[in-house]
Amino acid sequence: MTMVSQIKIGEYLIRQLAKYGIKHVFGIPGDFILGFYDMLERCEHIRLITTCDEQGAGFAADAYARVSGLGAVCVTYRAGALKVANTIAQAYAEKSPVIIISGAPGADEKQGSNLLHHPVSDFGVQKRVFDEFTVASTVLDSPATAQDEIDRVIHAALKFKRPVYIELPRDMVSVPCPAGHKEKREQETSDPGTLAEALHEAVALIDSAAQPVILAGVEIHRFGLQKELTALARNKGIPVAATILAKSVVADTRDFYMGIYEGATGLEDVCRYVESSDCLLLLGTFRTDLNLGMFTARLTQSIYATSEKISIKHIPFDNILFQDFIKGLSRAPISPRTIGNIPRPHPPRPISNSRKSKVTIDSLFQHLNAFLKKDTIVIADAGATLSGANDLYIHRSMKFLSPAYYASPGFAVPGALGAQLADPEFRPLVLVGDGAFQMTGMELSSIARYGLNPIVIVINNQGYSTERPTLDRPFNDVHPWQFSKVPAVLGSGIGFIVETEEDLAKALLTADQNTHGYTVIDVKIGRDAQALSRLRQAEKVQTKTP
Amino acid sequence: MTMVSQIKIGEYLIRQLAKYGIKHVFGIPGDFILGFYDMLERCEHIRLITTCDEQGAGFAADAYARVSGLGAVCVTYRAGALKVANTIAQAYAEKSPVIIISGAPGADEKQGSNLLHHPVSDFGVQKRVFDEFTVASTVLDSPATAQDEIDRVIHAALKFKRPVYIELPRDMVSVPCPAGHKEKREQETSDPGTLAEALHEAVALIDSAAQPVILAGVEIHRFGLQKELTALARNKGIPVAATILAKSVVADTRDFYMGIYEGATGLEDVCRYVESSDCLLLLGTFRTDLNLGMFTARLTQSIYATSEKISIKHIPFDNILFQDFIKGLSRAPISPRTIGNIPRPHPPRPISNSRKSKVTIDSLFQHLNAFLKKDTIVIADAGATLSGANDLYIHRSMKFLSPAYYASPGFAVPGALGAQLADPEFRPLVLVGDGAFQMTGMELSSIARYGLNPIVIVINNQGYSTERPTLDRPFNDVHPWQFSKVPAVLGSGIGFIVETEEDLAKALLTADQNTHGYTVIDVKIGRDAQALSRLRQAEKVQTKTP
Repeated sequence: MTMVSQIKIGEYLIRQLAKYGIKHVFGIPGDFILGFYDMLERCEHIRLITTCDEQGAGFAADAYARVSGLGAVCVTYRAGALKVANTIAQAYAEKSPVIIISGAPGADEKQGSNLLHHPVSDFGVQKRVFDEFTVASTVLDSPATAQDEIDRVIHAALKFKRPVYIELPRDMVSVPCPAGHKEKREQETSDPGTLAEALHEAVALIDSAAQPVILAGVEIHRFGLQKELTALARNKGIPVAATILAKSVVADTRDFYMGIYEGATGLEDVCRYVESSDCLLLLGTFRTDLNLGMFTARLTQSIYATSEKISIKHIPFDNILFQDFIKGLSRAPISPRTIGNIPRPHPPRPISNSRKSKVTIDSLFQHLNAFLKKDTIVIADAGATLSGANDLYIHRSMKFLSPAYYASPGFAVPGALGAQLADPEFRPLVLVGDGAFQMTGMELSSIARYGLNPIVIVINNQGYSTERPTLDRPFNDVHPWQFSKVPAVLGSGIGFIVETEEDLAKALLTADQNTHGYTVIDVKIGRDAQALSRLRQAEKVQTKTP
Repeated sequence: MTMVSQIKIGEYLIRQLAKYGIKHVFGIPGDFILGFYDMLERCEHIRLITTCDEQGAGFAADAYARVSGLGAVCVTYRAGALKVANTIAQAYAEKSPVIIISGAPGADEKQGSNLLHHPVSDFGVQKRVFDEFTVASTVLDSPATAQDEIDRVIHAALKFKRPVYIELPRDMVSVPCPAGHKEKREQETSDPGTLAEALHEAVALIDSAAQPVILAGVEIHRFGLQKELTALARNKGIPVAATILAKSVVADTRDFYMGIYEGATGLEDVCRYVESSDCLLLLGTFRTDLNLGMFTARLTQSIYATSEKISIKHIPFDNILFQDFIKGLSRAPISPRTIGNIPRPHPPRPISNSRKSKVTIDSLFQHLNAFLKKDTIVIADAGATLSGANDLYIHRSMKFLSPAYYASPGFAVPGALGAQLADPEFRPLVLVGDGAFQMTGMELSSIARYGLNPIVIVINNQGYSTERPTLDRPFNDVHPWQFSKVPAVLGSGIGFIVETEEDLAKALLTADQNTHGYTVIDVKIGRDAQALSRLRQAEKVQTKTP
């Protein structure tokens, strides 16, 4: 009899993670996941990245997925996994494919009485919670089905670009799987007739229009369709605006690109141009308040295409894949036209580095704009996108990340950890408010541990300034931190306090040269400093808060 | 026509919180809860306490509930509420009555399309998640029912000593309720005949036993039955041991008290005495691994009484309230006996404050034991309970808090915020590992903001030492922090590094005198320092991790 070497359940999971491009897994060890951690650490293709808190691991895995196409967070049962519920809900809402791997009690531990810690009411609670924000989930409780189940949920993450949940009981990690498993990945295809008909309708509509405009959404990036979008816009002469969540889906340098559309709360010229279009192409765009302006969007919606729905003049076309439709459109016989006089993002203005004037939100973003390089990836926290980050001039496609839709504060610092590990060629510039930094900013510890070098701009306006225009009360204040002293606690990195433009210029210059570690810059813009866009919004949009 | 002044939904909620003893509400503002925050801040009976992250607010509210009998955390929709899922699961598991109040979209915002931020798939997601770890929940979407609903869920929290969930749509905060509401609190009673029969059986069993022993659980505290327990033990001469979660339910000074029972993993003399009992009274005790020893408990369970079940010699008695049974037992005609030679907790040993020897886990706890005062409340984090905190000699009943059952790390520092606000007469001594401090320790910011003065002992053993006995791998290491420099970041408090016993004695002396703010003491006990009890456990209990 010959011994056949059989792969263990944990090993198969690791192999599939690596196969689909996962090089880093984020998390914190705990007793229900220790055996799998041990296996992961011995694997040469994947590096374990531990964070201060599971929340940080969740945000890091989300950013990693946005940059590299798939992310993973690996945590212990209950006290670990439930800490990432919010980050996974955000990944679900913003279409970021994160695999949650949670340890769990073994089969014999689930038998009989509830002699276990981290318990709630029954062993199904955790899976039921994650079923609310994932597109597939599984409990790997049988070697006979484990490989198929691992394949099924990973395929779902890749197909829907949304999180999936894998629960790995600790007594299953080292159980061998049956030999002879073949991975079967369902190949989805579009119905050729329907696709041709939809493209025909789309071409006719665009050709008959006086001013077609593309409003590009984040799914263009998630499905890797930037090239096709660019071909469509450039070759056919159709100008492009982007939603906030999709900021940088087209680089600001492209001459067919107009900037961010946010309805009446955003840039007026972009708003006017988009809303006067007689043929709007909403491509990969979610309809939400934050990315289409606060309840003010008035859109014709001539062509609407996402992974969930494709319709032309409100007529739905089923059985077409989003990516096939976009690819088809980019190659369709649309009559080329010349792009006329369209709004354009403002490239950085020349700035003076020696002014003693106090930094304002405007001058801060002018300096940052001038500072951005081709190897910069901007990671903006929830509030920061509303404070001017939208106007940053991004040189490369998808080098701007932000939780612009779900808007959970605390994303940016741990997001920099994930983003820089996913693509070490790019150096993160992190924009984070003082309030959001207090939530997760100490994940700079993990950034220091793994030798990364983001530049962290703390937009220090003494509280939750996002809320002040609506209701300016003391509960929007936060306790003042000396952010520049965080490096003293972490034993690495450098910190600056910035009050004037001259301070800012010097700090940015030093940060630029400090490539060996992170830099944190505490930019004191004062309590009443408000972002222009936010002020516009507060003035124009009637708040619903009593 | 006379105008009748009608109470608004938000006002009624605040009134009922105050009525049931809530003086502080923890949370972070966000747009869906701003209107209620405004109302709360204007209320003179309740103080809003904002934290760095919602997780900190959740832990603080839990500790507040454990000390004062009811706690509340108030957060915004989704990105706020989902961050407290883990803390609420812990409160559920450990029977801590926390009210979660979450903002939510208004009725008109829920209509039509999903033009809202913080979205997931539908508006029921968040309530369904919290339904998994709460005993009652409601959405206050109608003024006609809001008052009854508020009463119903608060009563459930008080009855079951577990969390409840209240979702307050932002357009409902200021809607007036109908006049003439009467709060109807269901008065539960025991069936007198069944109660008498159960007590009769219990008395007979105890009287016929040679060595009755009480194993007291945390429900004795949650239901406020310490006096009755003390009367039963003292007047009838029945010795008491406590579970870990119930540590300090009886003060260590009581002469009928033996200490903590943890099965074979705990103190040997207590284990032997408890397990040789021929009549064990499990009163308010959950059966779990961490509080009854790791799968080794061999208990006769002669009398078992919790709020969920009462049984005598395995015969269940329904329709009896836990509190009535304990009160009845304390007054029942049990024949008094004399307590003989029982194990006793070790009072602090005299220590020398001038030794230059390096601090060990043993000498640390010797010094802390000698340092404890009558006005100290010890708050131990998840890992710390396993590192010697169990052996601390607690002078007053219920002046030791720890998440000993669910065991979520990161509880202790925000827990000190909640505990000291709940009872300012007591000064917290916080015991927290370096790993757990990195999760939530920066909530010292909130402690500084509100002028509290806990003494925080960071048991710095360079990582997650709880896991090392099972599997000592690099992923159990954490990035080294200079914890003593945290005060420099927060702009208040004082910090120490402690390496020798002499350092420790000096630091504790200064901390004792520094009553104006917090003190953080970084006690470097070295990477290999293991708690005695944990070593015992690792030796005796076969690990299930591969």
